[in-house]
Amino acid sequence: MSGGHTAAMNKHPLDRALALAHSDLRVGQFTGATSPDYWNMVGPFGGTTAAVMLQAVLRHPDLLGEPVALTVNYAAAVLEGEFELVAVPIRTNRSTQHWTVQMSQAGPDGKLHVTTTGTVFTAVRRETWGTSDLPMPEVPRPEAVERLSIGPARAAWLQQYEMRPILGLLPAEWNGSGDASETRMWVRDAEPRPLDFAALAALSDAFFPRVWLRRATPVPIGTVSITTYFHVDSALLAEIGHGFLLGRATGQQFRNGYFDQAAQLWSEAGVLLATSNQIVYFKE
Amino acid sequence: MSGGHTAAMNKHPLDRALALAHSDLRVGQFTGATSPDYWNMVGPFGGTTAAVMLQAVLRHPDLLGEPVALTVNYAAAVLEGEFELVAVPIRTNRSTQHWTVQMSQAGPDGKLHVTTTGTVFTAVRRETWGTSDLPMPEVPRPEAVERLSIGPARAAWLQQYEMRPILGLLPAEWNGSGDASETRMWVRDAEPRPLDFAALAALSDAFFPRVWLRRATPVPIGTVSITTYFHVDSALLAEIGHGFLLGRATGQQFRNGYFDQAAQLWSEAGVLLATSNQIVYFKE
Repeated sequence: MSGGHTAAMNKHPLDRALALAHSDLRVGQFTGATSPDYWNMVGPFGGTTAAVMLQAVLRHPDLLGEPVALTVNYAAAVLEGEFELVAVPIRTNRSTQHWTVQMSQAGPDGKLHVTTTGTVFTAVRRETWGTSDLPMPEVPRPEAVERLSIGPARAAWLQQYEMRPILGLLPAEWNGSGDASETRMWVRDAEPRPLDFAALAALSDAFFPRVWLRRATPVPIGTVSITTYFHVDSALLAEIGHGFLLGRATGQQFRNGYFDQAAQLWSEAGVLLATSNQIVYFKE
Repeated sequence: MSGGHTAAMNKHPLDRALALAHSDLRVGQFTGATSPDYWNMVGPFGGTTAAVMLQAVLRHPDLLGEPVALTVNYAAAVLEGEFELVAVPIRTNRSTQHWTVQMSQAGPDGKLHVTTTGTVFTAVRRETWGTSDLPMPEVPRPEAVERLSIGPARAAWLQQYEMRPILGLLPAEWNGSGDASETRMWVRDAEPRPLDFAALAALSDAFFPRVWLRRATPVPIGTVSITTYFHVDSALLAEIGHGFLLGRATGQQFRNGYFDQAAQLWSEAGVLLATSNQIVYFKE
């Protein structure tokens, strides 16, 4: 929990954000709390919310296999403080499992209200034929790219990532003259931590809103739904450790208050680790 | 229902597949049945299942707005016959609504078992700035492309679509020599029907499995989860009517039993109507 100091303070900020207490009353029911380390402008960083939804499944005693697909829907604002998570294995097959997850918070009336819904698919994966039809773009090595310097901004979560932007991180000037929506950046946790599925779920959301870049205008936005597919297993993630990932994000369609973003994350060695799509509300 | 002939027989096959009866006992609870018209090799065409999940939301008396995002998880085989759908508006905001949907079927024990889970996001959309960063590929007009001739195959659903393949529909020979995973095709309902969200949800799944094309090998497959984003409103869909859509699908990563597919559907005029992603199991 964010409040439980001493021992917790030695943990990585992401591990503090992911800390959950399992209920004695109901299997798959957890309590946790939003993390000040990953605070965004008006609520928690959506990547951390996605990661903690996944974490409820990963902590469930009946878990089978490892994550393959994660969808998280941001139904209402998550407020600072405690939340409850319930992860339910809806269907368990021989080597696959389908989950629903919900996050709730107590409202002013004291009752729990759902803030976030999600579905997770986990599987025991076997070695098969494989290939990639989405090669990593040719980019300079991370050491050759300057690290983004982030001042004491309002968005604490940005401090948790080391970002080395190659292309289109943010507009050069907020002058309404944007003409492209692609970002390429090297990225990893600012404080070293071995890569795992929860970290990868969070990183899949670590791109600035495409509409800001595309229009060079900082309109109000909010992610509505994100879906991430994991293409590797935990052993491969562990090998990557604290290595850089290449993140690429593009906007596809912007219309009538919503746009979609397609994102990919490769290891420095060029392995496609995750593909992620989200749909985002924007104003005006 | 598929059994309720006479009047139903005059309906379009998709409308028969989408026919639902609303329960008197519980708001948002419906019964329906799998359609022989959209039967696939060992179960219903997944596109129809996605469409019928969406339809439960569209038929719900409390619906606010129109669909923006749909995720459907194929948790278990859907058997021939009746199913139950439950659509729940989890959160209703001023102009947006988040839904969960579940499909269930009676098992041999007489109890209902969940076969399919889903989430839907609907919204009242307003006119805003907009643009597309994913232009339609340059392709010959539909009239210049030969229609795929589909014999009396085992897969009835194929008969329901007029497909005019431009690129990579299926391998020329099943000889294990595939080297690309991109399909481009003109597609629409074989029997004329005005385009709507349910039809678009089904069309988003109307591509042959990427792994068959990529490997030129017909291995067993099954979609695990599909997420479709709708970029237009019902008025624009109605304008398209029975016009052709250009469908494009690519495989991205194939590894250890799963691959993902990114798909797009444009109107003939080049408007990007929907972007869709799915993750698919494959054997070996």
